[in-house]
Parts: sequence; structure tokens; C-alpha cells
Amino acid sequence: MTGLIERLRALCGQPHVLTRDDPATDLSAWEQDWRKRSRGRALAVVRPGSTAEVAAVVQACAASGTAIVPQGGNTGLVVGSVPDNSGTQVVLSLTRLNAVRAIDPDNLTMTVEAGCVLQNLQAVAEQAGFLFPLSLAAEGSCTIGGNLGTNAGGTQVLRYGNARDLCLGLEVVNAQGQVWHGLSGLRKDNTGYDLRHLMIGSEGTLGIITAATMKLFPLPAAQLTAWAAVPSMAAAVQLLGLAHARLGPGLTGFEVMGQFALSLVDRHYPQQRVPLFQQSPYCVLLENSDSENEAHARSQFEALLEAAMESGCVHDAVVAENIAQARALWHIRESIPLAQAEEGLNIKHDISIPVSRIPAFVADTDALLAREIPGVRLVNFGHLGDGNLHYNVQAPEGADGQAFLREQEERVNTLVFDQVARFAGSISAEHGVGALKAHKLPNYKDPAALAMMRAIKQALDPQNLLNPGKVLA
Amino acid sequence: MTGLIERLRALCGQPHVLTRDDPATDLSAWEQDWRKRSRGRALAVVRPGSTAEVAAVVQACAASGTAIVPQGGNTGLVVGSVPDNSGTQVVLSLTRLNAVRAIDPDNLTMTVEAGCVLQNLQAVAEQAGFLFPLSLAAEGSCTIGGNLGTNAGGTQVLRYGNARDLCLGLEVVNAQGQVWHGLSGLRKDNTGYDLRHLMIGSEGTLGIITAATMKLFPLPAAQLTAWAAVPSMAAAVQLLGLAHARLGPGLTGFEVMGQFALSLVDRHYPQQRVPLFQQSPYCVLLENSDSENEAHARSQFEALLEAAMESGCVHDAVVAENIAQARALWHIRESIPLAQAEEGLNIKHDISIPVSRIPAFVADTDALLAREIPGVRLVNFGHLGDGNLHYNVQAPEGADGQAFLREQEERVNTLVFDQVARFAGSISAEHGVGALKAHKLPNYKDPAALAMMRAIKQALDPQNLLNPGKVLA
Repeated sequence: MTGLIERLRALCGQPHVLTRDDPATDLSAWEQDWRKRSRGRALAVVRPGSTAEVAAVVQACAASGTAIVPQGGNTGLVVGSVPDNSGTQVVLSLTRLNAVRAIDPDNLTMTVEAGCVLQNLQAVAEQAGFLFPLSLAAEGSCTIGGNLGTNAGGTQVLRYGNARDLCLGLEVVNAQGQVWHGLSGLRKDNTGYDLRHLMIGSEGTLGIITAATMKLFPLPAAQLTAWAAVPSMAAAVQLLGLAHARLGPGLTGFEVMGQFALSLVDRHYPQQRVPLFQQSPYCVLLENSDSENEAHARSQFEALLEAAMESGCVHDAVVAENIAQARALWHIRESIPLAQAEEGLNIKHDISIPVSRIPAFVADTDALLAREIPGVRLVNFGHLGDGNLHYNVQAPEGADGQAFLREQEERVNTLVFDQVARFAGSISAEHGVGALKAHKLPNYKDPAALAMMRAIKQALDPQNLLNPGKVLA
Repeated sequence: MTGLIERLRALCGQPHVLTRDDPATDLSAWEQDWRKRSRGRALAVVRPGSTAEVAAVVQACAASGTAIVPQGGNTGLVVGSVPDNSGTQVVLSLTRLNAVRAIDPDNLTMTVEAGCVLQNLQAVAEQAGFLFPLSLAAEGSCTIGGNLGTNAGGTQVLRYGNARDLCLGLEVVNAQGQVWHGLSGLRKDNTGYDLRHLMIGSEGTLGIITAATMKLFPLPAAQLTAWAAVPSMAAAVQLLGLAHARLGPGLTGFEVMGQFALSLVDRHYPQQRVPLFQQSPYCVLLENSDSENEAHARSQFEALLEAAMESGCVHDAVVAENIAQARALWHIRESIPLAQAEEGLNIKHDISIPVSRIPAFVADTDALLAREIPGVRLVNFGHLGDGNLHYNVQAPEGADGQAFLREQEERVNTLVFDQVARFAGSISAEHGVGALKAHKLPNYKDPAALAMMRAIKQALDPQNLLNPGKVLA
């Protein structure tokens, strides 16, 4: 393999090929996943500086039969961007490809390289007078290439869709080291199979995204946030329907949070002063984005909440008076995972269910888990507007989280995933499959779909060089 | 082949397998394309009545190596749904699969079979209190399966996207006659490759869509239409930017129409009284959909048009006073193709260009064609909001349309398509490839993309049984 390393150094420059031969080099940032669930061992970490270099690296790896693990910000939650522990895989980091190649205001697009950090792209768009709506917890370090590779979701999906819905075109290096020049600012293009959507969400197993053309949107003139206490999950679903009907596309956020989830924030961060949660099994965070002005947004929001209270699906509600209050409400929502970590280790899920079936799913699954694991505590929250719940399972009060995770994770996953299947849902709504869920997929994916996925992988990457073991085990 | 016909009759029932053996049977409705450019010859027309029957038909055809041409309403414009003239291909018509399987108001979805006529689905949605926004000229006879197979566009793409953007899940029979049960009401599902988007727009060459779960939207409370005269295509693009900024997602239609296109409507349908076109090179039709009420929509629209007049990108404008006036304005837009046909045969294009480059594309291409074919007349109109132009080329005044088409079509196509390529556009924005453009694709598609398309086709349909000769020649 020294031949390959030499070749990679010749292609990308000595400082951009890291190996463990140099004792001063710490590869853990590339070898370990975000949640520290898996630490692999790379043959080398290669950091090409251009699309041409990415193509040359892939050709060199293909010639020597070396597997490649594409990596962006390495913030994924399903062990999708780190090498296995064989010491034979090359990590191909895209972070040096971080140019904004073009902004086209009249076309409402920007063309950016894969290694651009999401938050930087939000800022670049705003400086140009536009909104780039993709937004998620890791936005300060995740990259757009990774967002597309995993089809990231986040908090604005309800209105703007997932990462795939924001992408018009791609530049991709395929398993043969050829560059597909598919960057395109076109909103309509029916010239053959949609390779863009095939690459997006394939987690680096079909090609390596090097650049993308992304949609921009007008900046909203005003954005307001409300917090509503609802008497049940069914009431939350009813409120969602009302909000769709009254706010139309103005409804840009609809998050649900269970009472226990909020009580953890209250317990561990009392200074956040969680409103209205003590009397209600669920609270809802709503966001209204208005193309006119704040007064208009507020009157619309107030009319909605009044109607909701009259119909009984909301008990009490507040509308944030200013941006600081709005941020504080969002901060409570975003603090749930942190408060949960303070409480101890837990079993996380990222599931989706048709919105209409969520109340029955939650009632059924809560009861099932309570029967199976007496005292179990459910940290249920998520993007209800998208049918996406982070239905997390916490050990009984006082129990050892470590032992709970070790002894119960497999069983709890099976209980929850089987319920998800019964309710026609997905076992991975927005995080992807990675290595973490690859072995689960055959149990829950339609067999004809799985067969077609395998055929496509074999056709595009016959040597199985691109991120082997991810998605398809 | 009599063995196959007998088998198909046993599977679907005698009356649902049509052949030319019966002299009373006229197969032209299935063998001839919508624009009557091609008349094929089918071995048989099979009309299965269920997904299971579709699967059985595919298995029977696969066992005998017989090619299958899937067909919906047969309204496509690129010869994509009719058999070749070999007499060996079976037309598989989906029109008997026309049930609305479910409407889920809380999930904002409906699950429908492939043979449902688009207009019926619009009505079904409206009866349930929702909008199904896909809308196009052939909606009275096209089917949703065909819309998805070709990723249909239409007049509402600006706000709601193409057919693919409206689809959450599919049921598909693949080339092996297996059913992929991929119907899903999920807005987030990251469990592997997006086969849904791969099937959509593949024109029946990778699988046969038998049912789909489609998104529904709240019905707008009011919808207003305006007509604006603009001094140039650049001004039209400027107006589009203003409309995006001021109306946000309320902007649901933005159509541009060249002066010559409108003069043909004026000449052949003088009763339509085309407004404001005589002093302006282009007119624009705008639609504003409002979630509040008509007064709100009108004040927003008027403020936009005032601002546009102040900035100089609009010379004069009218807002329709009522639904009848709005319909009359849309009717003018929709009459352009008919007026053009009255004027004589012409060479049609369905191209897209990044919106920002359309003014330069049009100026350049108009000049090029005028040099190459003195007196040529350009019927330029389309969905400017999506960058999609129907840039049609009409014979010089008084010339013989038939001769013009015969002698110039190939040359004009090449001139226009080469220009499209120069401006980073697409030679088929919304109509697809079919048999009509399959031989053009290799000239304009990225070679790496074409190689991946061929690899996927080979992987999913190794016998090349599904719609052979379409998309990939």
C-alpha cells in the first residue's frame, strides 16, 4: 500500500495525505464518529483540493482496489462517514473543497463546493439578500456535501423540504473516477434518469458529491414563534391541520415536545423557564414566516391560536414578543437532547410515521414499552409537521444508563422498529442508515426495493469501493 | 406468440387483451401518439385490472422475451408511450387501474392508482377540501401514472414543483414482475436509495408505476391573476425577482408571452381581445394565491405592480376583477399553441435555461435564427418562473409549413439545442425524451451521466423489456 500512499501524496501534496506513520498525527477526528460509538482505523486520510484531485484519488484507489470513505464534517449520527477497523480504507475528506463558486440572484441559486460548512452557506445567502433554509443542530460544523449525501432534514422541512428538495444539480465523482458535470440551475430538466436524487441520500456509496447548485428563497419579512400547550397528541395533529389551513406556506415550523422531555429541560436547565408544560402532556412550537411584515404575521398567528383555543385543541399559548423570546423558545426545544444526556444514556430513534397515525402509534408504543420495561421513560419530541419523531427511550428513574443501553438497546430497537413497520413508518427519517442500521434494513425494507438497491450498487460500483458496508451491509 | 396472447387472456380476461386478429378492433388509440407523429404496430394491447395482474403480465412477457410499452392516457409529446412498428411489443395500458385508494386529510396525502385521470384527481382533492396542484393542458385525459412516468411540469411548478415533487411514495412493478410496495405517506424517509425519484421520469423504462401517494395542499382562500406589459425579457426577469420578494410563496404562476405569439392569438381568435400586447415585446401573466382572502391578495398584487411600474420593469398592467376575467387571461395564454397551429405547422421546443440567462439566450438565438432562415418567426412563450420556454419556430409568413417542417426541422433543432447547451440549459424541460429525442441525448448529455444511466438500465432491466428504444436509444 506504500505505492498508493506515494501516489496520493503526488496527487494532492504531501501535507494533505495523513497516515499513522507520523506519530505526531492524530487521526481521531476522521476515524471516530460524532457520537463516539465507533472508532475505525484508516489506511490514510486524503484531503484533495479540487474536483480533479478527487477524481485522481478515486482512480488511484480503484486501480489498487482500495476502499474509500467519503467524509464531510463527520457529524453524522449513524456511523456513515468513518472507516472500519481494518486499516485498509482511505478516508477522503472533502473539507478543502469549500468555495462558493457562484451566486445567481435572478435564478435564485448558489453553486457551492461540498466542503462548505452549512452555517457559512446560510450567512453567504443572507448577505446576498436570500434565505438558504436548510437548518439543523450540527450546522456549525456539518458540510453541504454531507447534508446532501445523507439527505439531511432539520427544522425547516415542513415548508422547504429535505436537503434533496433544495438541490437542483450536482457535480459527482463516480466509482470509476469520472466526473459527472451535473451542476445545473434548472428547475425543470427531463432528459433521462434523475441521477441527482439517486446520489442524494446514498451516503457516499454510489458517488462522491464534490459540488452542488442549491435553491435560494426570498428572505421572510418577519418570523414569529409561538408556544402552545395541547391536551393530547391528537390535539397537536388537529392544530397542525388548522395551522396549514390558516397560515398556508407561512407555516415554517411545527415541533412537538412531550411533557417528560420538557421536564428534563426544566430539571437540568431551570433558568430556561419552560412555559406551560406542567398541565399538558404535549407542547407545540410553531413558526410563522411572513412575506409582508411583523404586524401581519402577528395578527395571523393570534387568529390561528384563538381559533385553536375555541376548538379545544389548544389550552393555552404564548406568542414571542421579540426575537430574544423567540430564540429562547427554540432554545428550549434544542436543549432537549442535551437535558436528556444530562439525565443519562438513552436509546435514540429517528422515526417517521404518517402524521395521521402518530397519535395511535405513540399511545400503542408507549403502552407496549411500559409493559415490557416497567418504569421506562419516553423522551418524545420532534418535527411533527413532517411526521418525524425522535422517540427516545430513557432508563427508569435511578437506573444505570450504561447498563440499560447495553442490555436493552437491541430489544428496544426491535420493539420500536416493529411498531414503526406496523404503522407504515420509516426506521430512519432523517439520519440515514450508515453502518449503524445497515444490518437492520433487510428486516424493514421491501424486498423488491432492496434487490433493486443492490443491483444499482453493483452496476455503479462493481468493485464495492465506495463506502462499503454502509447502507447495504 | 399465440401462447403469450392466450396466457395474457387467461390472466386479464378475454375482453382486456386486444389484437388485430379481430377486424372489428381499432388499435389506433394505443398505437398512435398524441401529436400523430408516429404510428406503431402492437402485438397486443393488454389492460390489466389490478397491480397483481400487471405483475403477472410482466412475468408472462419476461418469460417469452416480449417487450412491454407501458401506457397511461397516451398524451405524451415525445413518442414515449406507443409501440414501434415491429408488431412484437405489447402495449400495457394502465387505464383500468383507476381507483382512489385513500385520502388522508391529517397527513395531507391521497393514494391513487396509475390510471386515474389528472382532472379527476384535482376534483377528488377539492371535494375533500384540498388542492392537488398538478395542472397541465392534457389534464382532461392524461393519467397520474403517465404524469409521474414523465415527471410532468405544467403551470404550477413555480410554487409546487414538478410531478416528482408532489409524490411521496410509489407502487411499482419492476422488470422481473415483482411488486415494489413503496407507497408511503412519509415526508422523511432516509432508508436507502431513492428509487421513487429514479422511477419518476424514467418513462416506463425501469419499472411500471401502478399507484402513488401524492401530496395535498390547503386550498388557497383567493387566487388573483394579473397581466403586465414589459419592455424586454430582461424586464420580465426583473419583475419575477420583485414578485418573488413581495409575494413569497403566494406567487404561483409566472408565464411570459412574446408579442408574435400573442399576435397569432389576436389574428386567429380576435374575440379573445388580447390586452396590452401591441406596444410591448413581451407580456407576463402572474398568479397570486393567498391563504387569507381576496382583498389581501389584491392589495398585495397592486403594491407589487405599482413598485414594478416605478422601477420601469412594467409599462402597464391589469388585475383581473373576477374569476371570469382571470380565466379569460389564462385562456389567452393557453390559446397560443392553438393559434400557432392555425397559422401552420411549426417546430416545437421545450427547453429550459437558468432564468438569469434567458434574456441573453433569447437575444442570441433570435438573431442566429433570423440570420440562418430569413423571415423566420419565433413563437416564444412559457413558464418563465421555471426557466422553461416553448421556443417554437414558425415558417416565414406565407411559406408552406409542411415543407418548412420537412426541410428545416433537423437543422433548426440542432441550432436551438446547441444554443441551449451553450447556455447550460436542457433540451427537454418538461416533456421528456421518449423515442423522439432519444437519438439526440448522446449529443447533449454529460457522458458520465449517460454511462451511469445505461448501467442502471442494464442492472434493473437486463433483458431490455421495458419500453425499449425510449430515453436510451
